[in-house]
Amino acid sequence: MDAMNLENPVFVTYLIASAIMVIKVMGQGWVTVYRMLKVGSGYASREDLKQGLINKTPDPTQLEVNEYVDRSRRIHRNDLENIPSFWIAGLLFVVVNPSVLLAQILMYGFVIARLGHFWAYSTERSHEVRATFYTIGSGVVVYMACHVLFVVLM
Amino acid sequence: MDAMNLENPVFVTYLIASAIMVIKVMGQGWVTVYRMLKVGSGYASREDLKQGLINKTPDPTQLEVNEYVDRSRRIHRNDLENIPSFWIAGLLFVVVNPSVLLAQILMYGFVIARLGHFWAYSTERSHEVRATFYTIGSGVVVYMACHVLFVVLM
Amino acid sequence: MDAMNLENPVFVTYLIASAIMVIKVMGQGWVTVYRMLKVGSGYASREDLKQGLINKTPDPTQLEVNEYVDRSRRIHRNDLENIPSFWIAGLLFVVVNPSVLLAQILMYGFVIARLGHFWAYSTERSHEVRATFYTIGSGVVVYMACHVLFVVLM
Repeated sequence: MDAMNLENPVFVTYLIASAIMVIKVMGQGWVTVYRMLKVGSGYASREDLKQGLINKTPDPTQLEVNEYVDRSRRIHRNDLENIPSFWIAGLLFVVVNPSVLLAQILMYGFVIARLGHFWAYSTERSHEVRATFYTIGSGVVVYMACHVLFVVLM
Repeated sequence: MDAMNLENPVFVTYLIASAIMVIKVMGQGWVTVYRMLKVGSGYASREDLKQGLINKTPDPTQLEVNEYVDRSRRIHRNDLENIPSFWIAGLLFVVVNPSVLLAQILMYGFVIARLGHFWAYSTERSHEVRATFYTIGSGVVVYMACHVLFVVLM
Repeated sequence: MDAMNLENPVFVTYLIASAIMVIKVMGQGWVTVYRMLKVGSGYASREDLKQGLINKTPDPTQLEVNEYVDRSRRIHRNDLENIPSFWIAGLLFVVVNPSVLLAQILMYGFVIARLGHFWAYSTERSHEVRATFYTIGSGVVVYMACHVLFVVLM
């Protein structure tokens, strides 16, 4: 039952998938920063209009919503709605000792689905394409949580 | 000290409460999708105005904030402000070996409080009712974090 | 490899840092509540305009965005973009057995950076000051995730 150690391939799968998702979420913050600096707009706070290294030519319109910057914030928000749930559902899933193959399909499937969601959202693919990636990721997390409840309660 | 195994009833309590909360958070995303499709509005991205399976009769007003859809997003946001903190505070709490009864009261209490918050927010109960559920949930998480610090530091 | 127990000083470091961050995140919700009640504005839902204990003199302008209240929500959002990632990256980091000193520098460094970010954002310091604290916190989390991947994959 000592599931959380590096000799357990299910746990290693979880570690790899979770660490990649950490880098994905944190990276999205940097995409927002990059976009904000690139277009010099989409700032959220009035003090960001002070002249300085980050903002050399302040202008009140910089506080308006900028679609290019806001798109990155929406992707980030969607990440936050899905990835922390994956982290904890995945950890609980490891503890109930699923098969390695099932864990790999679900966890790497989640990673691929979220990277697909990022690609579809960034490049403005149709709602259908984005929704498909979202659905796969969501399905993985919900399945893992239900699997855990089934093992513990049945 | 091997707290994280299925023979520990405190850990099992944590597993059940956390898995239910995973399903709650993920389900809220689907409530938003359901509401968006039902009213055909509250879309967040301009590409969602392309005609397709999801959106058969596109219209620029579909990008406006829709209270029915936005309410689900606000519930979701409130979940994200509270539930991930519960997941980690609960896990830390398991490790410091609290009594089973205390863990059950706190963790199942949190679950009930969050489901109550969802009910109050969805059905537009008064701010006082919603705030009461929020306060109970918040109190559980803060208590668990303080309990952990007390055990480790005292 | 039994890293998650109270005899492991790296895990204790993680416990302390994570519990403090739980209190920080949950506390930010209460800062928003405090600010909302203080200015009697910045409410998010129309039912909050019903007269009651919380809102004694309702007024439709109370639903408008209030900078003082919204600032706390933005701080909260930034917390949610960074702290859950820290919780999971830190847990994974514990499992791969880093040195105690490195763990302490990174984890307490993260806590200090996030408290600095809160201070800079609350008091409207320049974008540069706030960005510096953000960058330190983000760097810690990304480093821990990369470190985990390096240990597991190399």
